[in-house]
Amino acid sequence: MPTSVNRQVVLRSRPVGMPKPGDFELVESPLPSPKDGEVLSRTIYLSLDPYMRGRISGAKSYAASVEPGQVIVGGTVGEVLESRHPGLAKGDVVLGYDGWQSHAVSKGGGLRKLDPKQAPVSTVLGVLGMPGMTAYVGLLDIGQPKPGETVVVSAASGAVGSAVGQIAKIKGCRAVGVAGSQDKCHYVVRELGFNACVNYKKGDLLASLKQACPNGIDVYFENVGGDVLRAVMQLLNQNARIPLCGMISEYNATESTPGPNLRPLLFNRALIKGFIVSDHMARMGDFVKDCGGWLRDGRLKHREDVVVGLEKAPEAFIGLLQGKNFGKLLVRVGEDPTR
Amino acid sequence: MPTSVNRQVVLRSRPVGMPKPGDFELVESPLPSPKDGEVLSRTIYLSLDPYMRGRISGAKSYAASVEPGQVIVGGTVGEVLESRHPGLAKGDVVLGYDGWQSHAVSKGGGLRKLDPKQAPVSTVLGVLGMPGMTAYVGLLDIGQPKPGETVVVSAASGAVGSAVGQIAKIKGCRAVGVAGSQDKCHYVVRELGFNACVNYKKGDLLASLKQACPNGIDVYFENVGGDVLRAVMQLLNQNARIPLCGMISEYNATESTPGPNLRPLLFNRALIKGFIVSDHMARMGDFVKDCGGWLRDGRLKHREDVVVGLEKAPEAFIGLLQGKNFGKLLVRVGEDPTR
Repeated sequence: MPTSVNRQVVLRSRPVGMPKPGDFELVESPLPSPKDGEVLSRTIYLSLDPYMRGRISGAKSYAASVEPGQVIVGGTVGEVLESRHPGLAKGDVVLGYDGWQSHAVSKGGGLRKLDPKQAPVSTVLGVLGMPGMTAYVGLLDIGQPKPGETVVVSAASGAVGSAVGQIAKIKGCRAVGVAGSQDKCHYVVRELGFNACVNYKKGDLLASLKQACPNGIDVYFENVGGDVLRAVMQLLNQNARIPLCGMISEYNATESTPGPNLRPLLFNRALIKGFIVSDHMARMGDFVKDCGGWLRDGRLKHREDVVVGLEKAPEAFIGLLQGKNFGKLLVRVGEDPTR
Repeated sequence: MPTSVNRQVVLRSRPVGMPKPGDFELVESPLPSPKDGEVLSRTIYLSLDPYMRGRISGAKSYAASVEPGQVIVGGTVGEVLESRHPGLAKGDVVLGYDGWQSHAVSKGGGLRKLDPKQAPVSTVLGVLGMPGMTAYVGLLDIGQPKPGETVVVSAASGAVGSAVGQIAKIKGCRAVGVAGSQDKCHYVVRELGFNACVNYKKGDLLASLKQACPNGIDVYFENVGGDVLRAVMQLLNQNARIPLCGMISEYNATESTPGPNLRPLLFNRALIKGFIVSDHMARMGDFVKDCGGWLRDGRLKHREDVVVGLEKAPEAFIGLLQGKNFGKLLVRVGEDPTR
């Protein structure tokens, strides 16, 4: 159904604390036209990820901020409607970074054509995309897990965490998740094969974690910060490694909250290292080969939490920050022609 | 002057908070006799170091605790009085780990004979010993400073800190100290050649540090914890490294104090790594060659703070924890025959 309208979600005002629906605004604008080398596409899937909270905050972070009035950034899978780039044709399905909008014009050179026969196209936003690669390089290159070691990961049912625990298992480790509901814990243990999972909302976190990690913690893949990190610090083994991927529990803090006391790092000769996946692009080939293979073998499972309709993006994103999603959170903005 | 008495400082009770003189006790016992393979020596110098606070605390740490009633541990330089070990003879001056006592019997194989012509024998407890090597491996192997980078070190006039800053200068870095008095700051800048030094007891620490580090901080060699670490975290550059050597400001805390918020590690892809020099013994040859050479060249200076008399050890140690020493703290327990 051709349209002449582009629907966009723009930042209305910088959120203070937890974002509110009123911080976002759905606007319409005329459909843009591609120039030479450009492509017009319609969005099929929009990826919602925790890092976006930083991008709309205006605070110092990895990358430039989204300013009020601008379309919010985000990874997308789209279908080419009109191509003025020699490498792409109408009907191609592509990975892009078009953000929270129904249509976009972008440089053809920045898009990656997807083969729907290889894997469902949505996986390029999750297990075979940025979140999966974040898990892969963070765990393997920074965490450096050895067989028999204990790997703990928070946000364990999420896009990154679910891959971390499964890769840890593939590497011969004990995988222990931390998640925010009994359903999520059951999922990571029964479906994904983690050895144990602790519901951080129930009972004594430190005691539960200690019970789940009888031999202590060698690697903690950090996605959340706050209480979980504090508990983990009490259980670190000698030479433990903590890849610091995210701290979602603190993203909405209006003041800088204190961190854990760092003496356990000292007497355990332990390491904390912040990282960002874009520094590790040299590992893309290994990642695609390994995780693509594991996905096809059924050793790497994934779960998508799909919300339908661009207008639902703000609410879904707020839910993500509150831990309400269950699996990789996607917005289906338009029909998926490959399904 | 031969004696039949061994004077020892034993732990009387585990300190709660800052140690008090009454936590220590000077006792006398009969002079021990060496068995086959052993050596009787008299202590010339006793090294006092911050790590000893952990050893008398009973808390989990690198090594076994000193129990109440036991002689407190510590590195020593001694003179052999009687040898039943083939490699050592009466009159040899040796590096040992005899602790807070005037005499000791120890395995001859655990002692290292010193050559007073190479360097003053006391330096084996400081700039050419464990503190110097701690500076060397912590800065070079974990901090990995590159020419032109800014290296900050706390406890800058101390045994470790003074070496860190000077090695940073030798490696082409901007060296910035943090110390607890104007005298100490003058010393590290005027005598040791640091580029700047901030007195953490005066004015606004963050503002002063920012002024001393106009290009941000690439390496922070951490000896103290607390406020200095919190300020440093605000000034980290991308890919900053923090070798975590000690946290002396927190050693007497009776409760676990919160640490700094760790988000700066995340968006700067920065690293904190605890370490202990004994894990890095493979670097001993490089250390002796480099630091020995720099010491003889006059490029690596050092300062000793020598207290005379074993009975002064408790008070001197308490002063060390309060930052009252100025340079490497030693107790001269007996006459130095090499001077």
